[in-house]
Amino acid sequence: MEVIKTISDLKDFIKDYNNVSLVPTMGALHEGHGALIKKAITEKTQNEKVIVSIFVNPIQFGPGEDFNKYPRTLNEDVIFCEELGVDVVFAPNAATMYGISSDENDNVHLSNNYLTYVCPPYLLVDKLCGKSRVGHFDGVATVVLKLFNITQAKKAYFGQKDAQQLFLIKKMVKDLNLDVDIKSVPIVRDKNGLALSSRNKYLDEDGYNKALTLNKMLNKVKELYDKGVVNVKILFEEAILLNNDDKVEIEYFEFLDFNNLEPVNIVTKNTIVAIAAKVNKIRLIDNMIF
Amino acid sequence: MEVIKTISDLKDFIKDYNNVSLVPTMGALHEGHGALIKKAITEKTQNEKVIVSIFVNPIQFGPGEDFNKYPRTLNEDVIFCEELGVDVVFAPNAATMYGISSDENDNVHLSNNYLTYVCPPYLLVDKLCGKSRVGHFDGVATVVLKLFNITQAKKAYFGQKDAQQLFLIKKMVKDLNLDVDIKSVPIVRDKNGLALSSRNKYLDEDGYNKALTLNKMLNKVKELYDKGVVNVKILFEEAILLNNDDKVEIEYFEFLDFNNLEPVNIVTKNTIVAIAAKVNKIRLIDNMIF
Repeated sequence: MEVIKTISDLKDFIKDYNNVSLVPTMGALHEGHGALIKKAITEKTQNEKVIVSIFVNPIQFGPGEDFNKYPRTLNEDVIFCEELGVDVVFAPNAATMYGISSDENDNVHLSNNYLTYVCPPYLLVDKLCGKSRVGHFDGVATVVLKLFNITQAKKAYFGQKDAQQLFLIKKMVKDLNLDVDIKSVPIVRDKNGLALSSRNKYLDEDGYNKALTLNKMLNKVKELYDKGVVNVKILFEEAILLNNDDKVEIEYFEFLDFNNLEPVNIVTKNTIVAIAAKVNKIRLIDNMIF
Repeated sequence: MEVIKTISDLKDFIKDYNNVSLVPTMGALHEGHGALIKKAITEKTQNEKVIVSIFVNPIQFGPGEDFNKYPRTLNEDVIFCEELGVDVVFAPNAATMYGISSDENDNVHLSNNYLTYVCPPYLLVDKLCGKSRVGHFDGVATVVLKLFNITQAKKAYFGQKDAQQLFLIKKMVKDLNLDVDIKSVPIVRDKNGLALSSRNKYLDEDGYNKALTLNKMLNKVKELYDKGVVNVKILFEEAILLNNDDKVEIEYFEFLDFNNLEPVNIVTKNTIVAIAAKVNKIRLIDNMIF
């Protein structure tokens, strides 16, 4: 396996291959990423290579967010990728990605004042996570398009956990006529049901136990749905009871049509139940798609 | 020569060729476009094809602008391209380009509320033409990126007349890591010096005579510069005298560094002198790069 840090080295590498598939990550890899990587490797065609990109993208973090303390574990990530059979880890720095010699996200030159951005549709951004994380999805779409262009990937793998991201990347591919097949992979959970996330590293034991509430609420919805309850008002009210002593600070708990991110009153196929909450100031998300 | 209307037909066409070069236009072709096309054909390499796109892009016109009356002359344009030796005219409609069945630019679904946009840097947009044409360059960058992706062009040809557009497209290519070589072609003028533009068709005889003022002002700058005058204040004041009876309504007349679009006080290599003015309500632009 090769670890490549520059765009020119990456271009040298890919020119010998028919196809490249990309797993874009911010590192701090866990079994959720592992599921994406394994799927990419399983779906490899002849003379195809799997690239995992590791880049903590400054422009997708807001001013008060955790860019500086976001976990960076490149050495472990490289070993993780090698053991799974990845062909290339692409680990550029901010100077390589943005032509600006800074890893600080407070550098004003990383804003849309100075850089060309990709801006997903406002009405699809201004809901769920995008409502509180202003500018986040512009930063995500921009870096993902850059990675698509740099790697010339024909397939790219995204986790269903970041459901709004997955939705907006698919929309970008359609709207901008990109020739990339977006593959999604279901949420991976630990033995207690907590959705895997790099941010779980921030949780202490108390936080961890509280964080389980997110998955419990989703399970409650599923349990009632399996008994025939499809009315969103009832599902919402029953599930929210599990947080009646405010274990977690809920930011949103919504039932949407995953075809268009519009709210629904009745759960049907392709309804997404999405939840975001803070646990001891750590922001976590989880969801379930019917 | 083929005339292709759909994206799938275009993809079928290009898959047999090594390279494609693109001349993106809004039609109403004139000798300015002709110069772009001729350069593209001259620079063709083996097994390369030249595509001229013709698409009056609704999302680059503002609410009060001339989208509906913009000249549409597809039959003549096709003949023009065929005579020059173009390989393909790609002439999609708005439904093909935006997946929305409307050619009207007042369709709200063509806004960034519903579509993924490419947004060039605000500080480079909020000057020259971008200052009065709010949203214009977002619309331009978006459609150009779509056309690059659809055609998989490795080279694309833009006129120097739309200098800010040329600048922002080059910036987009750099910022988004596109693999397209942007080629520019000098302004083509008629026998009286008027820069060719599809909008010149709107001019009556009186308007035409007034419109010549733009080029006369640029020529005055050049004449003084050739005599050794490099002070922008002096050049500006001398040139503006040519419009002392308000033949044209000047929107801007600026001296900028074409490396960064910042104002300069002294003319040096790569200074651009750019002018926009209305003539009997027709908006025209012209420029000169040292």
